[in-house]
Amino acid sequence: MDMNDFILVSVDDHLVEPPDMFADHIPAKYKDDVPKLIQRVDGTDAWVFEGQEATNVGLNAVAGRPPDEYGAEPTKLAEIREGCYDIHERIRDMNANGVLAAMNFPSYPQFCGQYFARAKDKDLGLAVLRAYNDWHIDEWAGTYPGRMIPISLPPIWDPNLMAEEVRRVAAKGCHSVTFSENPTKLDYPSLHDPHWDPFWQACSDTDTVVCLHIGSSSSVVITSLDAPVDTMITLQPMSIVQAAADLVWSPVLRRFPDLTFALSEGGIGWIPYFLERIDRVYTMHRAWTHQDFKGKLPSEVFLDRIVTCFIDDGFGIECRDKLNLDMVTWECDYPHSDSTWPVAPETLDRHFQGVSDHDINRITHQNALRLFSFDPFTHIPKEHATVGALRALAKNVDLGYRSSERLRKTGTETVTVLDLAAELPTT
Amino acid sequence: MDMNDFILVSVDDHLVEPPDMFADHIPAKYKDDVPKLIQRVDGTDAWVFEGQEATNVGLNAVAGRPPDEYGAEPTKLAEIREGCYDIHERIRDMNANGVLAAMNFPSYPQFCGQYFARAKDKDLGLAVLRAYNDWHIDEWAGTYPGRMIPISLPPIWDPNLMAEEVRRVAAKGCHSVTFSENPTKLDYPSLHDPHWDPFWQACSDTDTVVCLHIGSSSSVVITSLDAPVDTMITLQPMSIVQAAADLVWSPVLRRFPDLTFALSEGGIGWIPYFLERIDRVYTMHRAWTHQDFKGKLPSEVFLDRIVTCFIDDGFGIECRDKLNLDMVTWECDYPHSDSTWPVAPETLDRHFQGVSDHDINRITHQNALRLFSFDPFTHIPKEHATVGALRALAKNVDLGYRSSERLRKTGTETVTVLDLAAELPTT
Repeated sequence: MDMNDFILVSVDDHLVEPPDMFADHIPAKYKDDVPKLIQRVDGTDAWVFEGQEATNVGLNAVAGRPPDEYGAEPTKLAEIREGCYDIHERIRDMNANGVLAAMNFPSYPQFCGQYFARAKDKDLGLAVLRAYNDWHIDEWAGTYPGRMIPISLPPIWDPNLMAEEVRRVAAKGCHSVTFSENPTKLDYPSLHDPHWDPFWQACSDTDTVVCLHIGSSSSVVITSLDAPVDTMITLQPMSIVQAAADLVWSPVLRRFPDLTFALSEGGIGWIPYFLERIDRVYTMHRAWTHQDFKGKLPSEVFLDRIVTCFIDDGFGIECRDKLNLDMVTWECDYPHSDSTWPVAPETLDRHFQGVSDHDINRITHQNALRLFSFDPFTHIPKEHATVGALRALAKNVDLGYRSSERLRKTGTETVTVLDLAAELPTT
Repeated sequence: MDMNDFILVSVDDHLVEPPDMFADHIPAKYKDDVPKLIQRVDGTDAWVFEGQEATNVGLNAVAGRPPDEYGAEPTKLAEIREGCYDIHERIRDMNANGVLAAMNFPSYPQFCGQYFARAKDKDLGLAVLRAYNDWHIDEWAGTYPGRMIPISLPPIWDPNLMAEEVRRVAAKGCHSVTFSENPTKLDYPSLHDPHWDPFWQACSDTDTVVCLHIGSSSSVVITSLDAPVDTMITLQPMSIVQAAADLVWSPVLRRFPDLTFALSEGGIGWIPYFLERIDRVYTMHRAWTHQDFKGKLPSEVFLDRIVTCFIDDGFGIECRDKLNLDMVTWECDYPHSDSTWPVAPETLDRHFQGVSDHDINRITHQNALRLFSFDPFTHIPKEHATVGALRALAKNVDLGYRSSERLRKTGTETVTVLDLAAELPTT
């Protein structure tokens, strides 16, 4: 298949929230209490909510920056590409990369809306979270129909409220929710605990996919504080294997047979090893651990029920016969430093040599659209949805690097985890 | 190749120390101060040293037990197979499994000799550690020449003493040392710190391989305390990827070009994904992290310098063209619960369909013998070293399961990490 005929749907990109996001979505009684974007005396931006500041305005939102400036995180909207927070510019950036549709994870509220969960006034927290979801669905995703797959934040402090919110947004066409790869690290019960049952039931009832993004336990893989930061960057995606093992061994997938999970930004090349390992553990240890998959193997449960995705993972594509090609999806990761933007089609094309058109279509868009219950083609005819067609609309998008003198590091010392520790996400 | 013609050398088995180990090896002045195996009032065994008790007499030494009894760890020598602690019985068990030679990691002293490192009297600690190494090399490995590849414990509290000990045992023919996959978890400096340079230099000078065994950071992969124990068992081997990333990104391999590491019990099927990932991180991030591999790729450094091994990893064998087949070795893991004993040849045979004799020989024994500087064939002619020849010597070895009523669990509840927490290794 010619690269220009790919139809690309990314299941994991990121947005940076714009200042006016709550204006049209918060009930009048709370309108003075919503999080506000302020400029601090040092010139950096911060969101403030109930007096609590969140400074990760655009954590790692480095799209378009020269690679030698990736290390210093942007601290205000003025330092990041407009496409991060402006939907019109975002669509132009997607066009330039040939991407038809994308799902966008949040920035300052953190992956599971922890920032809202910390609200002392829980009614206010819930109102703000709902306003966030309404902004995301109606405004961010609604402005350009067929271009944004909506995803909601859960009121993680109460499984019944979570269930209610899942049902509320599903009625508005949102069938994805972002949750934690390991809620115990956020001081909530584990995936093994029945605590979450109302939430699982609501997701199951509404065909809502539960997305577990790497880093959504608010922890990063740090071997030691003096380890080069490259160590963390190398290990972070694969660490989702812990959530994969948790899921397969937990009762959740067996108790909710219609529930689907996604391992967002987790990569795919490690999966065949993992599946062989998990089946071996089942076979060798089930006599004393008392696990019972009722005639199935753990690997079959994984393959049937867990959506996987990759950015740039040639080996994973090469061993695709070990995966369930109905559950493999692709992601762009715009605007983070691991993104292939604006050369995603070229990157994929290298890996798709020898892959059938049928499989390419499943991986690039068909699986994502089916799994996340999203149909762009009622809005955009297929012939206008291809890489070639979208890029033709984007000839005037400036793809040159934009340098920021403030962000330019001059040293040549190896960067360590400690150097970035202050900028790491916190619970 | 016929299974009976394999020559099997295992680079990772385990011994359980017998009570009389120090008798012939400790200097007279310390003879009353060595660790002693005692029977406690509850009937369990413990080693006692400077008043400090170590109870993991045979942690997970379950060879020969019915699989439904694996969960409860043996607490005294009387509950484990004689081959764990008796060299004559061990050789018979190796014969029964067709294994020519094996390297044996320690039990109660822990992987890096932490038990000795905790000695208040450091001179005594060093004397005991040296006596341990002498017992291991001269007695355990020396009784049957050509059958045991010796490995030494390091006096981990002092890098200069470590260097001295590496040189001392190398002169006696020992070219392996067991170290930590992450010394920071044992409260020592990280792999990135020059602290260890004298040790690396001594290993480099004496062709001594530094073995990093899974669990040698005295930590296990626990997602949550109520996670089924299967989760931990699934994740533990692959967690060595953290040490792999640490090693490749650290200056150690680049500063000591003759130094070799081994990832003991780490498996191999995850490696192709890891290598693609680490090269991608280098290419995309080096401009700001300032890593420099001088024209090489990180993957090449890994493939050239790190010995890998597997127990039962068909996918790893299948994608062997992504590995360096001069650095892949095999292990049996006797007497632990992941071991393929006594059917290692049959297990390997399944994976070796379609693999050339040349590659089978490299994986099963040639790499191990070259890398660990061990030559069994001056003692045992090749025609007596094969699976078929060794098993012919072992026809009277009892391979039936031996049950222990005390160890039999009667419940059918899923076992969780919490159930085993008391039995997990501690720092």
